Amino acid sequence: MTTVDLRTAVLAKNDGLAAALRADLTAAGTVAVNLMSSPGAGKTALLEKVLTLAVGRGVAVAALTGDLATENDAKRLARSGAPVRQITTDGNCHLEADMLRDHLDAWLPAGTRLLLVENVGNLVCPASYDLGESLRVVVASVTEGEDKPLKYPTAYRWADLVVLTKVDLVEAVDFDEAAFAESLADVNPRLPVIRTSARTGEGTDALLDAFLAAAPTSRKETS
Amino acid sequence: MTTVDLRTAVLAKNDGLAAALRADLTAAGTVAVNLMSSPGAGKTALLEKVLTLAVGRGVAVAALTGDLATENDAKRLARSGAPVRQITTDGNCHLEADMLRDHLDAWLPAGTRLLLVENVGNLVCPASYDLGESLRVVVASVTEGEDKPLKYPTAYRWADLVVLTKVDLVEAVDFDEAAFAESLADVNPRLPVIRTSARTGEGTDALLDAFLAAAPTSRKETS
Repeated sequence: MTTVDLRTAVLAKNDGLAAALRADLTAAGTVAVNLMSSPGAGKTALLEKVLTLAVGRGVAVAALTGDLATENDAKRLARSGAPVRQITTDGNCHLEADMLRDHLDAWLPAGTRLLLVENVGNLVCPASYDLGESLRVVVASVTEGEDKPLKYPTAYRWADLVVLTKVDLVEAVDFDEAAFAESLADVNPRLPVIRTSARTGEGTDALLDAFLAAAPTSRKETS
Repeated sequence: MTTVDLRTAVLAKNDGLAAALRADLTAAGTVAVNLMSSPGAGKTALLEKVLTLAVGRGVAVAALTGDLATENDAKRLARSGAPVRQITTDGNCHLEADMLRDHLDAWLPAGTRLLLVENVGNLVCPASYDLGESLRVVVASVTEGEDKPLKYPTAYRWADLVVLTKVDLVEAVDFDEAAFAESLADVNPRLPVIRTSARTGEGTDALLDAFLAAAPTSRKETS
């Protein structure tokens, strides 16, 4: 068996598990959102805001957060009052569908409307592993520069939505929003972008609305 | 053959190629520096500064830059006047020793004192692949937050040196340098840190000095 064959087999097994998970989540009326970004793009700070807003609005929300090591993110997110679980991958560079299945069966509260899944901080590997999500989100910080869609095209093609974070720093880092939009248009035209700042709260209500507007059935198994 | 066996075999093959490459580079008097970071940490902007300084000092310097896609980084780095080559990995999340070998044999100028290798933007996968380097560097931006050593411990244990970038933004992003030092001490005590800003030029001379002070033979094959 060659490396390529093995990789194909691993991905095919994951795709099957993800499809079954998506069917179960859909039947339960749960929208799962898979959030991918570079390390330090601000996923956790943003999720803490969105979870707090959701709890405040009475939305049945929960979160799973993946990291190579530490349980720090789960502790931060739990301050929102939402149910939160940490998945520690022990060095694995992405989450896989079976890691979610293990946690969800034992823990996800019945009636959960929205499940936010924070992937490992990595703009490459997570895009190959379907997690049974309904919505795929790339979280991009303005501090990373305008060219990231061109340099990580797989991630940006994989996404249904881009969340731009730390927009309060646009001037401090000379981020050129028009240049970012051009990079994005080259790779994945018509991809919607929501501008946010966890520091000021800008865009976090709109982001929660976008998550709630996604249907559990919106993603096809063939993608 | 299981996934684990295959992975071990792939890594063992890479280690053998890297050891041979290190022996050849050492014999030629070339110090190779492997730079690893998150996407958008500012490796390319920093390298452009350091290459320009090195060319100005008359140091025989060259650079190899890895990306999933695009040749943009090589074009930026070539403005320094140093010889530069791009390695496009077609979606692979890290560089490997054989990719360097292919480029070096056909291109590296004789008498090169310093070879700077910019890895793919990823804080996970590159740490598993020895490239025959003499010095391993993690480039960490102050915009990523203070906890990254704890969350990406493999990268920070792998490193011989940390370069902190964008220090001109410390106040704008409320980066807590003492907290970062504590995170680092938990994972890899005694790891030296050089503070830099490509925008102001701070620390770039000291960084070039650190690269030039590394001996080609400083890294053992067993690590």
